[in-house]
Amino acid sequence: MPSENIDKFFHPKTIAVIGASNNEHSVGYSIFKNIKNSVYEGIVYPVNINGGEVQGVTAYKSVSDLPKATDLAIIATPSPTVVALLEECGKKGITGAIIISSGFLEAGTEGKNRFNLIRQAAKDHNIRILGPNCLGYINPRLGLNASFAPKMPKSGGIAFISQSGALCNTILDWSVNENIGFSYFVSIGSMADISFDELIDYFNTDPEVSSILIYMESLNSARKFISSARAFTRTKPIIVLKAGLEEPGKKAVLSHTGTMAGDNAAFEAAFERAGIIRVATIGELFNYAKTLAHQKRPEGNRLAIITNAGGPAVIATDYLAQRGGQIAQLSDNTIVKLNNALPPAWSKGNPIDLLGDAQPNQYRSAVEACLDDALIDGILVILSPQSVTQPEKTAQEIINIPGLDKKPVFASFMGSDEVKDGVRVLLEAGIPVYRTPEKAILCFLGLSKWKHDMALMQEPSEAIPESFLPDTAANLKIIEQAMASGCYNITDITAKMILQNYRIPTNPTYLVQTQKQLDNILKKTGFPVVMKIDAPGLMHKTELGGVRIGIGSAKEAKKAYADLLKIAKRNFPTNVPKGVFVEKEISKTYELIIGSKKDSIFGPVIIFGMGGVAVEVFKDIAAGLPPLNMALAKHMIEKTKIYQLLKGYRNMEGVDIKAIQFILYKFARLLIDFPQIKEVDINPFVVDENGGLALDVKIALDTKEPKKTADPYSHLAIVP
Amino acid sequence: MPSENIDKFFHPKTIAVIGASNNEHSVGYSIFKNIKNSVYEGIVYPVNINGGEVQGVTAYKSVSDLPKATDLAIIATPSPTVVALLEECGKKGITGAIIISSGFLEAGTEGKNRFNLIRQAAKDHNIRILGPNCLGYINPRLGLNASFAPKMPKSGGIAFISQSGALCNTILDWSVNENIGFSYFVSIGSMADISFDELIDYFNTDPEVSSILIYMESLNSARKFISSARAFTRTKPIIVLKAGLEEPGKKAVLSHTGTMAGDNAAFEAAFERAGIIRVATIGELFNYAKTLAHQKRPEGNRLAIITNAGGPAVIATDYLAQRGGQIAQLSDNTIVKLNNALPPAWSKGNPIDLLGDAQPNQYRSAVEACLDDALIDGILVILSPQSVTQPEKTAQEIINIPGLDKKPVFASFMGSDEVKDGVRVLLEAGIPVYRTPEKAILCFLGLSKWKHDMALMQEPSEAIPESFLPDTAANLKIIEQAMASGCYNITDITAKMILQNYRIPTNPTYLVQTQKQLDNILKKTGFPVVMKIDAPGLMHKTELGGVRIGIGSAKEAKKAYADLLKIAKRNFPTNVPKGVFVEKEISKTYELIIGSKKDSIFGPVIIFGMGGVAVEVFKDIAAGLPPLNMALAKHMIEKTKIYQLLKGYRNMEGVDIKAIQFILYKFARLLIDFPQIKEVDINPFVVDENGGLALDVKIALDTKEPKKTADPYSHLAIVP
Repeated sequence: MPSENIDKFFHPKTIAVIGASNNEHSVGYSIFKNIKNSVYEGIVYPVNINGGEVQGVTAYKSVSDLPKATDLAIIATPSPTVVALLEECGKKGITGAIIISSGFLEAGTEGKNRFNLIRQAAKDHNIRILGPNCLGYINPRLGLNASFAPKMPKSGGIAFISQSGALCNTILDWSVNENIGFSYFVSIGSMADISFDELIDYFNTDPEVSSILIYMESLNSARKFISSARAFTRTKPIIVLKAGLEEPGKKAVLSHTGTMAGDNAAFEAAFERAGIIRVATIGELFNYAKTLAHQKRPEGNRLAIITNAGGPAVIATDYLAQRGGQIAQLSDNTIVKLNNALPPAWSKGNPIDLLGDAQPNQYRSAVEACLDDALIDGILVILSPQSVTQPEKTAQEIINIPGLDKKPVFASFMGSDEVKDGVRVLLEAGIPVYRTPEKAILCFLGLSKWKHDMALMQEPSEAIPESFLPDTAANLKIIEQAMASGCYNITDITAKMILQNYRIPTNPTYLVQTQKQLDNILKKTGFPVVMKIDAPGLMHKTELGGVRIGIGSAKEAKKAYADLLKIAKRNFPTNVPKGVFVEKEISKTYELIIGSKKDSIFGPVIIFGMGGVAVEVFKDIAAGLPPLNMALAKHMIEKTKIYQLLKGYRNMEGVDIKAIQFILYKFARLLIDFPQIKEVDINPFVVDENGGLALDVKIALDTKEPKKTADPYSHLAIVP
Repeated sequence: MPSENIDKFFHPKTIAVIGASNNEHSVGYSIFKNIKNSVYEGIVYPVNINGGEVQGVTAYKSVSDLPKATDLAIIATPSPTVVALLEECGKKGITGAIIISSGFLEAGTEGKNRFNLIRQAAKDHNIRILGPNCLGYINPRLGLNASFAPKMPKSGGIAFISQSGALCNTILDWSVNENIGFSYFVSIGSMADISFDELIDYFNTDPEVSSILIYMESLNSARKFISSARAFTRTKPIIVLKAGLEEPGKKAVLSHTGTMAGDNAAFEAAFERAGIIRVATIGELFNYAKTLAHQKRPEGNRLAIITNAGGPAVIATDYLAQRGGQIAQLSDNTIVKLNNALPPAWSKGNPIDLLGDAQPNQYRSAVEACLDDALIDGILVILSPQSVTQPEKTAQEIINIPGLDKKPVFASFMGSDEVKDGVRVLLEAGIPVYRTPEKAILCFLGLSKWKHDMALMQEPSEAIPESFLPDTAANLKIIEQAMASGCYNITDITAKMILQNYRIPTNPTYLVQTQKQLDNILKKTGFPVVMKIDAPGLMHKTELGGVRIGIGSAKEAKKAYADLLKIAKRNFPTNVPKGVFVEKEISKTYELIIGSKKDSIFGPVIIFGMGGVAVEVFKDIAAGLPPLNMALAKHMIEKTKIYQLLKGYRNMEGVDIKAIQFILYKFARLLIDFPQIKEVDINPFVVDENGGLALDVKIALDTKEPKKTADPYSHLAIVP
């Protein structure tokens, strides 16, 4: 969709409020009043089926009666009327509509049908839609409150997108109180049309938008979201609070919005890929808003802490160190300056403890010295109201320091009544103030980590070590045959063949159907060997006693052969397997897992980590989204604990990490080339200093996929 | 020390303020003024070296001039004068003193000397001391502010002990603002005398104390602290914020208080043993204060969430589930009540979503229904200010519900100006209000977990499976001999003997000094074997190539024997080892670590968990303090991830957990019986369904310990 439409949508010169009313308890009343009473300079028309006057303005009885097509229509009428109204808007030539009304996706089958009808109407008439089931939006620069939220925030750099209208109200109330400005404030609702990705793209074209804050419950066009977000986060941060992570939360999302919340691991991988800072609580989301509203972004993670309170400074120091931040080392020059300005008993290091009787000018001197110190990336000023403390005067001294915006400066004036005048002074001057130091540190570190990650992401990935020519045609044939025969679980020889065709090394499995074949194969493999029943499509053979390990002689192998045939016969009487599988038993230092699972929102998600039987116990697993390049593959590997061992640990030799990266790269290609693949489980993939091999492979095909290859992800750019 | 003295200390009828003054900037001024102006009914005497009048009251020139011995003296004079003043107090017959002055433990060598002198003076004259370097204390029930903190909190159940005076001021300011009451408010300072344990014991005798809140940087009499805390937490909660966890934080503690912060793992084990709820941030500490001030303690972890805001309720649900809480299942009866009281579109489940236009009486009905539902342990009321929301009226409806104190009720009215009147109404009625739902949930879950843990702790531990008769005398001999010969690192045969003497199974190591001996031993062990150089006191042989594994034949063994002798000779030319060690090579399913390390504050700390080379990588380790009973040992084991495997996982048979518990029990006894042991490292201790064995054992002795056995922990009671 062209972004001009979106631009007009958010910068309308004329607006029609359909359902505008004189009933103070109605939403249509609030919206019309909000627009009429705001400083917005455009024209707003009330549309009310009864005509007459609405809040003193003559109302139009219908959309068709309007003097001309408005740039925006806001529909606040009962859900059964919406489709017809949309069609009327379309006929009138209106190109954008906010649907405030609820009663759609969250309202059972009937609601879902209505939802589909408004999507169709929007498509038929080329109307962009925000909602349904939303609050509307606010554009503070225009002074336009096109919502029924009761307040107008001040103008600023943050664009806020929320899938919860209630949270909009809360954030608004807090923001006005703490002097936080917004460029856009959008209640996105059920996303019949305008979705997160398009808003991000649009905000990326607006230089006034300095950051995006999102509350998200569900997501559509997930891959597009990732690429839009990544384009934005190259230069400006996006913070997301994602709800619906645990089963009860997912259930609540479904009941709340009628949509699926998706899988947490997939979101984690997606957010990371997109360079998004993820937060876990509403408090964190708002704390970031404070930081983003006021602050320069930190260039690194070295923090100076200036305090009149020893205890809180210790806590802050712990918190910083625990989360990977650094207590800045003060330069000699800074120490000299502080020695001159502070009482002799000051702490002589960072945290800069000014002691309990710290005076405003001492705070000033300390902040000034830190601003000039190139080894400091951010400054946190802690103040606890002690007997001679002057919070307001201290705040005034601080805000009057020239060049205060050279570095991020955070404050934690810790108290209520005793500090409130100081807090007000700081907030008015654009210094974010936190109730406790930890909250400031969390934001400081989140932003400095984002800066660091973005710098890494800009680096070109190393090239793949050799040319990669998979046999796609061979795999297509295998997969199509399997699907045609209704066999959706592929194991053993066939599964390994699929990997081999993509140049992923496997430990060969041999099918043996006679004693003679067994003898020949044993000559090839040597001992020990593993033998398994040949049960096509059976994913878990161990449970049936269908797997024998540690077979060390021809005699044992003979016996196992007979036993396994018996077991197979007993379990598959109608379709007796003709032979058994034989493999060389291989033991290498590390057991890994390489796998994938289709997520309902993101499609295939790759997992990598410590394998073996206890994958679920240690959960040392990293998730990633295909496609991968060598750098992304490396990043996945590095996120696991077992990487510490793989790269070589103490006296133990490491393995070829680059080879594993390349295997992940190939594996990702396999998933992209074959959307028919629903799930892959390579466990274990064993590896030591001499290389790696897939020992056990299971592939499940997707019964819902059409029987052809396709690349649904071609729009997802890879970091070069 | 007799607790009567402490009782008199906190309930004085007469107080002398030494250093009371007319100088408004002095601490002595503030303290005298605070006492004089408070409703305290006792008598306060100013003592000032210059005599005259202090704040209109005739001052005494010296302590000896006082008309009689006061119950309490508060010393607020420069540190060099304090020792002499204390002695004067003693001669006068004063039995308690608060030393406000700083300049002691935190002030270099001179300060430390002074600190020791005041301890001596206090001992000589039988004076109980709070401080030095503290704010004093507040006893709100007496209306007594014996501190220089500027405010008086209201009277209530929380006893607060803080090692940071600044944090006292902050908590005070917040508390007054949020209507939180205290029974005692104690700035504990450098703990020359009165320490955490004694305060806890004393508070445990006061029925008005319903909980204790602690900010802690360091700890003395650590074991006594554990037993005092455990006695208290059997019935009432203790919440601790411990500072100084990470290196930079420990450094800050040292600079701040002149004391060691200790090791985090040891504190974790100690707090757990003591039944203490540990918090990580200042915000959490204060949030608990809110809960403890107002709330009944929850009986379980099933929460009902009542909301007018879908999004925040989803977030709350996630947060609850992630931290082990349960979304309460509403009973049929509750559903019926809610169907009758709420609009048809309510969520029909928990979270109880009243929808955006929720009215006060609907909130009331929902809370009432939940109070009556036996399957609900706590209620969280979320309110976001939406267009028709009435926060104040909603709050009034809620506080007027009869029987509201039947269950813990938390509120999160999410906003600023829009909700502030509602918040005030709730706070005044004793309902804790949190800025976001997550903060309330954290406190709810912390307290319900504490209740649950305490119930478990009351259960009698199972008995040890068989009688345990260690050969203490034999170990004493080994250890004394080792220390006498200056050998502080014990390995191999001797180290295993120490375990065997405590009935901990080991894989025997044999010393072989001739080819003939080697042949004989190999007959005993069979193959494969491990061979190592015999290098007394050498902890890490692998680095020298001094360990050979997988020796599978007599021929290989012969070669290894020769090689190892050569290596030994090369590395120990002056003291050539005479032989090599031989062990049967044992492979079992799981490698564990059992170890211990002396902590500077707590003495020996036991660790248990996943062993092998990668202990530091996976960090699947639980810590505990000796002594252990079978229940405590089990608890340690259960805290590890590898326990999921040990107890039997999927098709894999489990191991004898009780046997491991018993080994930990014995191991703890070993540590208690021999304080000479500084560090033990049994890694791996291998185990499978047929039992467990220590394969490699290293024991380090403590060069600082006297060469005799002793039991320093006899005062620490074990749970029966």
